[in-house]
Amino acid sequence: MKKFALILNGCGSMDGSEIHESVSAMYAIDKHGAEYRIFAPDMDQYEVIDHRSKTPMPEKRNCLTEAARIARGNVQPLSALHAEDFDALLFPGGSGSAKNIFSYLYEGEHFHVNEDIAAIIRAFHRAGKPIGAMCIAPLMIARVIEGVTVTMGQHAPTSKLVEQLGGHALPTRHGEVIHDLRNKVFSVPCYMLDARISDIFEEASHLVEAMLQAMNETTDASKGQ
Amino acid sequence: MKKFALILNGCGSMDGSEIHESVSAMYAIDKHGAEYRIFAPDMDQYEVIDHRSKTPMPEKRNCLTEAARIARGNVQPLSALHAEDFDALLFPGGSGSAKNIFSYLYEGEHFHVNEDIAAIIRAFHRAGKPIGAMCIAPLMIARVIEGVTVTMGQHAPTSKLVEQLGGHALPTRHGEVIHDLRNKVFSVPCYMLDARISDIFEEASHLVEAMLQAMNETTDASKGQ
Repeated sequence: MKKFALILNGCGSMDGSEIHESVSAMYAIDKHGAEYRIFAPDMDQYEVIDHRSKTPMPEKRNCLTEAARIARGNVQPLSALHAEDFDALLFPGGSGSAKNIFSYLYEGEHFHVNEDIAAIIRAFHRAGKPIGAMCIAPLMIARVIEGVTVTMGQHAPTSKLVEQLGGHALPTRHGEVIHDLRNKVFSVPCYMLDARISDIFEEASHLVEAMLQAMNETTDASKGQ
Repeated sequence: MKKFALILNGCGSMDGSEIHESVSAMYAIDKHGAEYRIFAPDMDQYEVIDHRSKTPMPEKRNCLTEAARIARGNVQPLSALHAEDFDALLFPGGSGSAKNIFSYLYEGEHFHVNEDIAAIIRAFHRAGKPIGAMCIAPLMIARVIEGVTVTMGQHAPTSKLVEQLGGHALPTRHGEVIHDLRNKVFSVPCYMLDARISDIFEEASHLVEAMLQAMNETTDASKGQ
């Protein structure tokens, strides 16, 4: 049974992981006969946002503790994630992700990626294991993996930034998955486009299918040697 | 296009609405070509639980504000919900629901239902509009609608309580929907049983199908008169 590591960073699109994208990824993995473990950084969220008024709330919340809501308690800190235990790595999006695990939404083009997250991405990439990224998360991948091809939906500023970072950004509509087979990086637009919840579930399903196919091709190639 | 009112009460199984059940209901409604509006009570949650350690946290959160995380901001207070604007009513579960909108988890068999919620259930029932309930929520329906038939999965204490309240509790396995066609109440077990996330999505889909069929039969009968 193929095993995905899923990285969350809270519970809510504006200050953590986007909930529909996270749940659709979990469902797609389970539905396709694979399994997942969920991880999150054990650190304060960058901020807490009232998702109704879209204004900051004067409190602190922890990325790992809040991610446990989506994971029904079954979540571990990043320190427990070892690439050798998994076949693939998957990042749901949410603008909160671009505050907590990379800094695009407050540092713009000079953004950095959380060091633990960057090390995990590099470990999966080095091992030739598929990496999936939804919504805003492909931008983070483009900072860590040089020359990667991803999608930012139809969003011009982040697409341009991917190109500045030395990567390639291909425009997508709903239901499309961008395959970078050289880097084994797979990306989908999700809420980077105006979306219905069904679009998110369709893309999560296509994304997981593409990643499983890449894993099976690796297995077949190893067997052939 | 058929219109569902979906009632949430927070964001997390232990102190609000169960996230997978809520998202699976939204997805099922959208996938079946219907639409939804989300509502939640504008009041403090009964408590806040750390879903990783499963212990209370010394803070306050509001049911409506937290529900907005699942709803991506598109949620309104219960005062904005009028049964005449909708074709059906749907309650996801979560043990938090049995603390916030009814009191089973701290008052046991003498539990009461939030007055606004009870009034909404009665309004839909009186109008002959389908009511759906997932997981622990059918217990609440059994308090409000006398003699209703529901499922509590295989859970003996709540099944017995439904009978004490004058209702009928039928045992179910995953994938099964209990139809009470006289009362137009439809229920599924979800996380009342040990479940994989795919079970939740399968049951939400079956539940919404059953509710849509009940709506169409009403429409057909009206046309025939």
